[in-house]
Amino acid sequence: MNKNGLLYEGKAKKIYQTDDQDVLWIEYKDDATAFNGEKKDKIAGKSRLNNLITSQIFQSLKEAGINNHFIENLSDTEQLVRKVTIIPLEVVVRNVAAGSLSKRLGLEEGVQLNTTIVELYYKDDALGDPLINEDHIRLLDIATPEQLEIMKTNALKVNEFLLKLFKEINVRLIDFKLEFGITDNGEVLLADEISPDTCRLWDMETNQKFDKDLFRRNLGSLTEGYEEILTRLGGTSNV
Amino acid sequence: MNKNGLLYEGKAKKIYQTDDQDVLWIEYKDDATAFNGEKKDKIAGKSRLNNLITSQIFQSLKEAGINNHFIENLSDTEQLVRKVTIIPLEVVVRNVAAGSLSKRLGLEEGVQLNTTIVELYYKDDALGDPLINEDHIRLLDIATPEQLEIMKTNALKVNEFLLKLFKEINVRLIDFKLEFGITDNGEVLLADEISPDTCRLWDMETNQKFDKDLFRRNLGSLTEGYEEILTRLGGTSNV
Repeated sequence: MNKNGLLYEGKAKKIYQTDDQDVLWIEYKDDATAFNGEKKDKIAGKSRLNNLITSQIFQSLKEAGINNHFIENLSDTEQLVRKVTIIPLEVVVRNVAAGSLSKRLGLEEGVQLNTTIVELYYKDDALGDPLINEDHIRLLDIATPEQLEIMKTNALKVNEFLLKLFKEINVRLIDFKLEFGITDNGEVLLADEISPDTCRLWDMETNQKFDKDLFRRNLGSLTEGYEEILTRLGGTSNV
Repeated sequence: MNKNGLLYEGKAKKIYQTDDQDVLWIEYKDDATAFNGEKKDKIAGKSRLNNLITSQIFQSLKEAGINNHFIENLSDTEQLVRKVTIIPLEVVVRNVAAGSLSKRLGLEEGVQLNTTIVELYYKDDALGDPLINEDHIRLLDIATPEQLEIMKTNALKVNEFLLKLFKEINVRLIDFKLEFGITDNGEVLLADEISPDTCRLWDMETNQKFDKDLFRRNLGSLTEGYEEILTRLGGTSNV
């Protein structure tokens, strides 16, 4: 498989075409951004951590029967994935109050929710990725009701899987964000990444943060937190 | 029926108890507020206009089989209603892009929506009345799924009714906000008001505004706009 032309460069990844039109080559970047790009930095080692953690989690999800775009890990910072067209929705699943949910509903951060919350955000930088509802999605024609149902059902399955996975390594899964895409034959497939960039992960005993809030809120070394997650997951630094 | 003690004073109304424990006495106020109370004024005549317009619309809704809290109009500024406990949700129905929907989704104001949008906002001044979804409502235990279904179904029925009512008087119904309450015997009932304070109403030909945006955006005389609605509805100034 050869890496061909750059298809798209996002805030955290570069996406290249390959010889196979159904396969994309993803290169993770060391860039860290927060608050819709207002806070920016370059953090050496971040690309490796997110690529290795995502590769491991997506592989485990596949083995557990939760299909996704992941094909294989190529290097510390690269992976191959199935080509999908990303649906411009962030599907956020929450088990514990934190971040924007705490602000929106006036809930103290860290409070266990008595029901799992799924939120849908419209991926649009210019609009600041607003929370939307299913009527808005129908109006914007972002996803069909059937596609949305698949996304929500899969998001809850991923939550069940991740809660168990992180509990085993003594990590509290607070919340996370998923993205889905559509393959050329119309299948809705889990895509993007699952990493400390897209999850809130706290130590089960001390509530120490191992996620992007380290960067957002200047709470300490991002790479130390992410490395702790990779280590606890039993990840190795090379393929 | 006698007006007894003040039960509650809101931004736009005072609510009194009566001799009948199932009946409340509502007195509309001349206060105008916008942007969560940041903009405030006293506008002589507003109480009369909103009371008379609401009384007429709620009476027409009842006659059309859409049950609500309205009992009878008492004076230019007062009405009797059935006592309900207000559910802290604003149910917003939209036919045309305007206001916060335009901002949220980047849609030009005045664009006809190809689907009716229902939005749910958590009535909480301290939180700025945030948009929420049905998972949030379950978490906050604001309404049961059955109550929510009744509210949404009734909101769409009210929309059908109002679209027709306003079309007949050459007014474009852009959007409106409803509130519902629960009676002592558990019935979900349309409550609050339907007036130019809670609807966006534009002239069908000129798009001239006859609603609270006159006040919010300093576009002209609020009472002239509201009076135009009352006049077109055939309202009289006295009971």
